[in-house]
Amino acid sequence: MKQNILRSKLIKIFKKHKLSKEHSKICADYLIKAELVEAKSHGLTRLKMYCNRIQKKLINPKPKIKIKKISQSISHIDADNSIGFVSADIAVKQAIKNAKRTGIGLVAVKRSGHFGLSSFYAEQAVKKRLIVFCFTNAPPALAPHGAKKSLFGTNPICFGVPAGKTPFILDTSVSMINRGRIRHAHKLRRKIPYGVALNKFGKITTNAKQALQGTQLPIAGFKGSGLAWMVDILSGILTGSSHSGKTKDPFDDFSGPQNVGHLFITINPKIFIGKNFDKEMKKSIKIIKNLPKARGCDKILYPGERKNNTYKKNLKKDILIPSIIIKEIEKLDVI
Amino acid sequence: MKQNILRSKLIKIFKKHKLSKEHSKICADYLIKAELVEAKSHGLTRLKMYCNRIQKKLINPKPKIKIKKISQSISHIDADNSIGFVSADIAVKQAIKNAKRTGIGLVAVKRSGHFGLSSFYAEQAVKKRLIVFCFTNAPPALAPHGAKKSLFGTNPICFGVPAGKTPFILDTSVSMINRGRIRHAHKLRRKIPYGVALNKFGKITTNAKQALQGTQLPIAGFKGSGLAWMVDILSGILTGSSHSGKTKDPFDDFSGPQNVGHLFITINPKIFIGKNFDKEMKKSIKIIKNLPKARGCDKILYPGERKNNTYKKNLKKDILIPSIIIKEIEKLDVI
Repeated sequence: MKQNILRSKLIKIFKKHKLSKEHSKICADYLIKAELVEAKSHGLTRLKMYCNRIQKKLINPKPKIKIKKISQSISHIDADNSIGFVSADIAVKQAIKNAKRTGIGLVAVKRSGHFGLSSFYAEQAVKKRLIVFCFTNAPPALAPHGAKKSLFGTNPICFGVPAGKTPFILDTSVSMINRGRIRHAHKLRRKIPYGVALNKFGKITTNAKQALQGTQLPIAGFKGSGLAWMVDILSGILTGSSHSGKTKDPFDDFSGPQNVGHLFITINPKIFIGKNFDKEMKKSIKIIKNLPKARGCDKILYPGERKNNTYKKNLKKDILIPSIIIKEIEKLDVI
Repeated sequence: MKQNILRSKLIKIFKKHKLSKEHSKICADYLIKAELVEAKSHGLTRLKMYCNRIQKKLINPKPKIKIKKISQSISHIDADNSIGFVSADIAVKQAIKNAKRTGIGLVAVKRSGHFGLSSFYAEQAVKKRLIVFCFTNAPPALAPHGAKKSLFGTNPICFGVPAGKTPFILDTSVSMINRGRIRHAHKLRRKIPYGVALNKFGKITTNAKQALQGTQLPIAGFKGSGLAWMVDILSGILTGSSHSGKTKDPFDDFSGPQNVGHLFITINPKIFIGKNFDKEMKKSIKIIKNLPKARGCDKILYPGERKNNTYKKNLKKDILIPSIIIKEIEKLDVI
């Protein structure tokens, strides 16, 4: 589908669901961006879910988002159950302001929802020449180390740094693969890789449905489990949001709003060594790119480069949408 | 060896190496603590190395450590090539002060050295009821994803949170195991586990010496590699220290000071939700401990609990020291 047609359709759909024009545009743009970087699991495959939750009054289409100033550096945002895109967009902009003013920004968001890809928020801060951390929690998907029941979300760690034209953005879930990929595989009836998830009996499975009913595996055992807990503390407990398995699954659990939390930390990279930061960052990338390559590797990429290349490749192309999702869009467009 | 005798010996040795009494005590205490938590790789096995580097004027025994105030929250410390323990100890205390004053602290240290276990600094902040991140870089040990040459250190991510009597402290290297464990195995002529390191020809090895000559494996491929790069940026580039493979190996490279960097971020956990933070943190631990256990697991522990239990178990015991290291101590004590 042509991008401008898709964008109009999405804006229309969100407006029909009572979002303001401005908020509808934000949501449409984030969804399209997810498609352009081919993070299909965070793109249009979620549209119907967002609309469902709005219809069921679990996402507030007209949120009164309150920003409480704690200090010049620190802000606390009550998202009033907004769609995640909108509150996270406000939050990262606030975190940018705070760091520009004082060198460091800390912005916590409570009562929010799934916000798509963390890297899009990180990118905004990086484009303003800041280092940034984005943390968010998510519904149960991973068993804590030693347990056999899912509790932590796949809780991404996202870290961004200005690095010339293409931002350095590490956006990594602490699970072997992200849950969205499993959902997407399930929707399209595809298999998932071996060794990334267990079924409900604790056996490795490549069946997406069984994996969703079972539990995903964290990276590196107790290390990944510890990192997942860390992200839950930072984005869930610290911000005053749901945590410890209480974050509701947006697809399956309609018993209340998700109450997801986000945390953004922004740092001006020039506070300690001034312009030398950019110089040294460039040097780091050059040194690493010039290392002798492992077999099968032509080129060493830094985190974020591949995504950026994909984005640029797709920027002027039509978006390929599976027929199941086309039908969902058409149906929502008609309502 | 009795702890008080060992402590006196260590203080004497450091004083002989021209450290002040106060700095000698700090070093002795951190080394003994590493032994008590059974992190042997960060304990007495390193004593001779520290002394060697002092003798070769690569560690400055009488550093003029300068603390530059950037703002109420932010400080930059020039460690003047001090032994890592001393500058990191000063830095975390400064980070605690900054967060107590403003809610958030950011302290960067440049021109420092290996500082032992990150968790000891995290613990200090946690005992002052703060959330803390400690980052430090280290000499080349891991190949970046796509490369076949070591460049990143095992660069630990250390995160601490107040959690009742026992602090929640996640202290995890981004390598499959920490380099100190391989060094320690090498020293005692033991094997290392399968699948954690490659020899210089790129094959998996369980021989510690070959592993030290080869490269260690990061956790979870590009994820671990990305996290290692993140830690190098935060503690190396941002602080104005060595980075991208330039951090000198304290055991092997006597061509100059190590120029290690550290970064401490401290956050008052009560800034957003007040006392509820402690309540929710307790709830989180309770929920997770009560999950159904995986086969072979009696009890779910949170990060830091095992180390704390080990510490308490050993607190009143003599310290068992391998004869090779006893000889090193006796020799240094006599000089």
